[in-house]
Amino acid sequence: MNAEIISVGSELLLGQIVNTNATFISQKLAIIGVNVFYQTTVGDNSKRLTEALRQARSRSDLVILTGGLGPTKDDLTKESVADLIGKPLVYHQESLHYIENYFKKRNKPMSENNRKQALVIEDSQVLANHFGMAPGMIASFEDCQFILLPGPPKEMKPMFLNELLPYLINQIGGIESITSRVLRFFGIGESQLETDLLDLIESQTNPTIAPLANEGEVTLRLTVKHSNIEEQNRLLDETEALIMDRVGEYMYGYDDTSLMEQLFLQLNEKRCTIATAESLTGGKFSGLLTSFSGASSVFRGGVVSYATDVKESVLGVSKDVIDRHGVISSECAIEMAASAKEKLNSDIAISFTGVAGPGTQENKEPGTVFIGIAGLSAEPMYCQLNLAGGREAVRDRAIKYGCFYLLNQLKRWNKAE
Amino acid sequence: MNAEIISVGSELLLGQIVNTNATFISQKLAIIGVNVFYQTTVGDNSKRLTEALRQARSRSDLVILTGGLGPTKDDLTKESVADLIGKPLVYHQESLHYIENYFKKRNKPMSENNRKQALVIEDSQVLANHFGMAPGMIASFEDCQFILLPGPPKEMKPMFLNELLPYLINQIGGIESITSRVLRFFGIGESQLETDLLDLIESQTNPTIAPLANEGEVTLRLTVKHSNIEEQNRLLDETEALIMDRVGEYMYGYDDTSLMEQLFLQLNEKRCTIATAESLTGGKFSGLLTSFSGASSVFRGGVVSYATDVKESVLGVSKDVIDRHGVISSECAIEMAASAKEKLNSDIAISFTGVAGPGTQENKEPGTVFIGIAGLSAEPMYCQLNLAGGREAVRDRAIKYGCFYLLNQLKRWNKAE
Repeated sequence: MNAEIISVGSELLLGQIVNTNATFISQKLAIIGVNVFYQTTVGDNSKRLTEALRQARSRSDLVILTGGLGPTKDDLTKESVADLIGKPLVYHQESLHYIENYFKKRNKPMSENNRKQALVIEDSQVLANHFGMAPGMIASFEDCQFILLPGPPKEMKPMFLNELLPYLINQIGGIESITSRVLRFFGIGESQLETDLLDLIESQTNPTIAPLANEGEVTLRLTVKHSNIEEQNRLLDETEALIMDRVGEYMYGYDDTSLMEQLFLQLNEKRCTIATAESLTGGKFSGLLTSFSGASSVFRGGVVSYATDVKESVLGVSKDVIDRHGVISSECAIEMAASAKEKLNSDIAISFTGVAGPGTQENKEPGTVFIGIAGLSAEPMYCQLNLAGGREAVRDRAIKYGCFYLLNQLKRWNKAE
Repeated sequence: MNAEIISVGSELLLGQIVNTNATFISQKLAIIGVNVFYQTTVGDNSKRLTEALRQARSRSDLVILTGGLGPTKDDLTKESVADLIGKPLVYHQESLHYIENYFKKRNKPMSENNRKQALVIEDSQVLANHFGMAPGMIASFEDCQFILLPGPPKEMKPMFLNELLPYLINQIGGIESITSRVLRFFGIGESQLETDLLDLIESQTNPTIAPLANEGEVTLRLTVKHSNIEEQNRLLDETEALIMDRVGEYMYGYDDTSLMEQLFLQLNEKRCTIATAESLTGGKFSGLLTSFSGASSVFRGGVVSYATDVKESVLGVSKDVIDRHGVISSECAIEMAASAKEKLNSDIAISFTGVAGPGTQENKEPGTVFIGIAGLSAEPMYCQLNLAGGREAVRDRAIKYGCFYLLNQLKRWNKAE
């Protein structure tokens, strides 16, 4: 099955947004063994869209379109496909009810062009949109299937994964036997990792090993081909073991698991509750931790002690420590964590204080960071970092180091019963 | 001048990297008034690349190619273009010296395929690559110009800006005076906005008005063409005034300014300090507010009162309120904000409580959100929302509503001196 992706939207041709949809779809199709031979982007222009559709039909079995399903007059995708394959647009009652309910629930007036979103190509298979109003469609014409998906990634991605992918896998009679496993590393650079594994990377062909650096993390993608799933897993396990022998201390998780998610999972597994005291990071650490459903079973709460006097008044850090060592200090980080643990009655606590920049603070350079941890050992713990990068990079890296530090310490920790 | 961008590389069709090159080039061409009508991506495949080149030549004046200029056998771009326009490849001495020197300087052996990178299309204009080894080219054929640029953004971007852009501006006889102004709206849907402005959108040609919805916000891009900058601004101001007359209450800022940045700017301008009490949002609001350098002049700190007992113990919400109304209530939101204002000694405070989902809480549906505000009026203020979407969407939208709500209230607020 040869596929082609057509992205519709003048905002793409004006460079106002990056086309991450084409990347996402290509990636997923590659995994199930469908070849993508072209990605095309056209604007909200009926003539050029129709020309692109005609061409795609002539050379591809599967044409996936994103965008142009919105309520406004410049949304032309379903109209153009319907014209090309000679079918009318008809109201899809289920989608219409969904849209009407959406407005009713919110007590908002529904405009006529919202109704337009419930129009679908006659005889097409409708793909439900659980995150927006435009339904997707599968419309067949002779040997070619046109798949119409909404443009906003928040709507397109779940529709692709939950509605379309099972359909496609069924169409091609099961997944071809290529599997990837991603190993995630932190605290080691890409070139160091590559140097440590060079002979493996160069000699291994099944699975192949591909390193990739991104946002201070490095991943290794192991890709294996084999018709037998058990054999696939055996080959992946074997290679993973070789890698772990050399750089296992830096490995923290698999596939798409972020450091924060891994921490969340580990806190859950250990039934360990946590509290936070954030200055440098201003609540971003707890904001990320609470993005996971079920966070309330491990996260007690936190104090964002941004102003210095708030560290004393709300958190209870002693004036003496601040006067003697300043707020950008290991002593302050340790007291912040200890106070958070006590005030919020948690098993452990983590604190962040430091200089995000751009200016210095207490004569310390931007990137100076102290992370304190309470509750994981009898002795108070902290780490000091000197991080590179701008304000947001420093804050984000501090958070990642905090997660990694906690993960390593948690391994040895067990809840007192 | 009508342009088309062809991105070459199988890694794009496999979804291994995002095509930021096409976005970058489109953006820059839009600024100088060159229309991009198509973006096409093809793999490292001679037949399909040639087909794409043929088609581009037939419909575009300017064909910009990125990628496929590397040293390996699957790099085919210049070979394919040379074939199409019937020119041989010849060594470019300057590039050859540059490459030889590169290896000499680093004491590395130079391989034969590195020499291949110095081959250029005969009679083409060579674009120097100061960040890599593959030179770019401008090759003309009849009415069409082919521009060949390297694929790595680190090489492509400086070559585009420093070598190609001056050439293109010269070609089109100076920059056409096109300017955009983006108006940002919140609290109104795209279709409602369009309905309210339909006659303007349809009748206005200079500036044009283009709506775009993204993450719960809507923007209107006004694009004006005029040789005189003052006249440009006059035309933009005139259209903006017409728009503001109708939907001004939803407009909060310009261009790339986020709601949170606008709030930060307004707090600064009013010298108003703020504190937070976050349950639903878990610190994400303060995490975003502290992303701006200078946040300490307006942000005092916050309490992330995630567990119910923390709302009482650390924040000081009364047990009675929680027992009688629950934590998902306007009463709790109001007390959270009032307590944060008092505990953290700020001018104003904002609180977030609600159900992020996926499950219900206190028998309330996911998306039920209460935002409390203290300090902006004698009476306590709150708003109740029923937000759609998954867990993170609910949290993000709650934060945006909170910003928008504060922004509107702050307009009427002045610091007591």
